[in-house]
Amino acid sequence: MSNTRSYVHGYDPAESQRLEDQASTLETLLHHDTRYPAGGPVLEVGCGVGAQTVPLARNSPDARIVSVDISHASVRAAEEKVKAAGHTNVEFRQADIFNLPFSPAQFDHVFACFVLEHLPGPVEALRHLREVLKPGGSLTVIEGDHGSTYFHPDNAAARAAVHAQIRLQALAGGDANIGRRLYPLLREAGFPNVHVSPRMVYVDGSRPELADGFTERTFTAMIDGIRGPALDAGLIEAEVFEEGVRALRRTAEPDGVFCYTFFKATCLKPG
Amino acid sequence: MSNTRSYVHGYDPAESQRLEDQASTLETLLHHDTRYPAGGPVLEVGCGVGAQTVPLARNSPDARIVSVDISHASVRAAEEKVKAAGHTNVEFRQADIFNLPFSPAQFDHVFACFVLEHLPGPVEALRHLREVLKPGGSLTVIEGDHGSTYFHPDNAAARAAVHAQIRLQALAGGDANIGRRLYPLLREAGFPNVHVSPRMVYVDGSRPELADGFTERTFTAMIDGIRGPALDAGLIEAEVFEEGVRALRRTAEPDGVFCYTFFKATCLKPG
Repeated sequence: MSNTRSYVHGYDPAESQRLEDQASTLETLLHHDTRYPAGGPVLEVGCGVGAQTVPLARNSPDARIVSVDISHASVRAAEEKVKAAGHTNVEFRQADIFNLPFSPAQFDHVFACFVLEHLPGPVEALRHLREVLKPGGSLTVIEGDHGSTYFHPDNAAARAAVHAQIRLQALAGGDANIGRRLYPLLREAGFPNVHVSPRMVYVDGSRPELADGFTERTFTAMIDGIRGPALDAGLIEAEVFEEGVRALRRTAEPDGVFCYTFFKATCLKPG
Repeated sequence: MSNTRSYVHGYDPAESQRLEDQASTLETLLHHDTRYPAGGPVLEVGCGVGAQTVPLARNSPDARIVSVDISHASVRAAEEKVKAAGHTNVEFRQADIFNLPFSPAQFDHVFACFVLEHLPGPVEALRHLREVLKPGGSLTVIEGDHGSTYFHPDNAAARAAVHAQIRLQALAGGDANIGRRLYPLLREAGFPNVHVSPRMVYVDGSRPELADGFTERTFTAMIDGIRGPALDAGLIEAEVFEEGVRALRRTAEPDGVFCYTFFKATCLKPG
């Protein structure tokens, strides 16, 4: 959503499919407790290709949602996806989170999922969201934290591959470990009462659908997807990266275990 | 509980106090869903100085509990602690988990908390527990995982200090990261239907009592307590260790965040 950031997550069709798989696997974990009533509008910032917009629209069918992203192409893709899913309660606009085309206090609620991780100035972004939020209105923020990843069998190359992704995102001005920081960031942005709820994804051999949907097709696929940029940036040796991706896949086998934690923060703008 | 292991956790009074503080802070998180009925006896292995025995006895007042530890001194301390807490449903014995003085299938339920992490042969230990369990009886295992630790502000020295503890425990034949392995370990020990429930401790500025009770007085105190052995073993430089402990304390301040995950596994012996 920043003018200056480069995207770690691309916009090619394979990446879009990956984001959609991820959304479907994680939907209950992340979205089940976000329900907006009929009435004043809800702003979703950084909607991307709509992976989170679909569950948002489905869970709040009577809410009027305005979803924005800095990318025209993403906004169009999101619009198609939401239309294909049969939802008519979302209006789409291209907009920059740092320069929102809305009036102060225009929205009853604001929602941002997997957005702050990409921004060099997350507190500044949150202050912009605070500005367009009505007093008493709610802000909901969901972020991952790649540094929360651990697994069995443990493997140094796998840890190095994850670390390469974290450093790559840092080079692009983002923070792949931002989940753990939501509480202090929101406090700094002027939200006095912040509630953070960690959402841990725990995958063992009793949950093969999660091993496939999350460990393999979401997390390992995401790491595998940074091979080119990570090697180009000299962040990791090719052999170590390959071994790391194999070792991550290995954790999805029946005797493997994989852990990752998302963080969901909710707060109200002081009245 | 092994004949051969050296203890990372000592038996001095300060350490006992630390274990007691930890038990009180974590009691609800770890113990609330363990309730044994009146009837056949429950075996607690590795009771130590009784930090977990007190909540166990309190939550299952009608159960007959037999608590054992390999250390005579610990068993005596545990007996005093449970007596002082007013519970009369626990019988104490000195016993080695690898050579239990019980008959096969003698117990309706078996409980082990913070025990496997110390053992060079956790699967063998679990097979011994399986042996004394009745068919259809339950086994409950709780372990921490120091590798699940992450925090804000992130700090390399703090990570190094935690890693020194993990390596120290490995040198003593244990595994401080065993929590994530409970599922495969229990499967390997002959329990076909294992349910593992992660119990994450998330501490931010809205939970000052947890920052004090867990981040400071449990986790940081535990790391601080290995200074001597970690430096003696050459696992970390003194200055790095000191900086790491300071950085861990720093995460307990109002804008800090601390995350740690325990794992609780339950399973039944096939009938």
